[in-house]
Amino acid sequence: MNQTNVLKEQNQVPEPTLRRLPWYLSNAKLLRQQGAQYVSSTQISKATNIEASQIAKDLSYVAITGRTRVGYDVGELIHVLEDFLGFTQGHKAFLFGVGSLGGALLGDSGLLHFGMEIVGAFDINPAKVGTTINGIPIFHTNSFEERMRDHAVNIGILTVPIEIAQTITDKMVAGGIKAVWNFTPFRIRVPYGIVVQNTSLYAHLAVMFNRLNAAL
Amino acid sequence: MNQTNVLKEQNQVPEPTLRRLPWYLSNAKLLRQQGAQYVSSTQISKATNIEASQIAKDLSYVAITGRTRVGYDVGELIHVLEDFLGFTQGHKAFLFGVGSLGGALLGDSGLLHFGMEIVGAFDINPAKVGTTINGIPIFHTNSFEERMRDHAVNIGILTVPIEIAQTITDKMVAGGIKAVWNFTPFRIRVPYGIVVQNTSLYAHLAVMFNRLNAAL
Repeated sequence: MNQTNVLKEQNQVPEPTLRRLPWYLSNAKLLRQQGAQYVSSTQISKATNIEASQIAKDLSYVAITGRTRVGYDVGELIHVLEDFLGFTQGHKAFLFGVGSLGGALLGDSGLLHFGMEIVGAFDINPAKVGTTINGIPIFHTNSFEERMRDHAVNIGILTVPIEIAQTITDKMVAGGIKAVWNFTPFRIRVPYGIVVQNTSLYAHLAVMFNRLNAAL
Repeated sequence: MNQTNVLKEQNQVPEPTLRRLPWYLSNAKLLRQQGAQYVSSTQISKATNIEASQIAKDLSYVAITGRTRVGYDVGELIHVLEDFLGFTQGHKAFLFGVGSLGGALLGDSGLLHFGMEIVGAFDINPAKVGTTINGIPIFHTNSFEERMRDHAVNIGILTVPIEIAQTITDKMVAGGIKAVWNFTPFRIRVPYGIVVQNTSLYAHLAVMFNRLNAAL
């Protein structure tokens, strides 16, 4: 598989497809645990409640070919999906803001299994600077530029209070961060070419509360 | 404000609006910190990079009226949005699966400030059962039905391994849970009328990795 081609193809993958592929991956992992060797789009469709034609279309972005009658090789499907989704690549990240959520994320070793290694965290609280959480060192925010020289880090995780969300984002970008994973409920602004992934737990809470009120 | 009317109106709120409203809320909170008394759609638009007409449309779901020339009262906007989004209501939740991510969420006190109180967690690991995290007791999964009788809980947070995600979901629903906040990368299935909110950090990672590869 040619790396350049893979990247080029990935550029065109629609976000809904990227969000569905992990579902197929976890379904395939489950099947492997149960001893299955092959899986068809129809089987994945039954398990995930997504149309088989949609699944085939989504999987067409991935370099995998099913076999007539038997479907996809489960082991190959897992391998190819993990690779395609970037879960095997070991992306290094810094985390900014070791508050309640930031500290919680540092404690979540699951991120490592999905290709993200948090190599350091930043805060200004003297009680936190110099300590570690889950083996990850916490540095003073002022030493960020210096730490960027030590590590090849492209990703910054933003878990600071909203009043400094934009300032810290600007600082990250000036220091060379290329993608910001924004956990704050604040809508940050970045220059063209910088990736922002918003994951506001609180926005998800709002949607869930609303739907729950409607359902009760 | 009539509660029935509020609920009825909320039923019709589109998800994109519900996801944008927390941005306006955090913007208003920031303005309050800065001492502002009024804010216009134009100002929110500038700060959030969302069209002023879209903001006005989104805010039309909320019971607030702006004043000509000055805009919305900042304090009122915060109050009305927090109320509308359910952040002031104290929804009780149980968490299932005290692994790495589950433990991290128990440690995140931020959820409480946004209206979600985790009153208990369930696991089968004898080393965890009987202990607490952040003051939240961890019970054996078998005692779930019994605990449901003690608490008025509608929300179940799912942070178990994928191979038991569906089984635990079925157990939650049978026990009376009305909304499942699914943090697993597994696509769970629920009966009609049960709310599912998917928050797969790993799906978000996949999207971010892909966009980052394209940008580099």
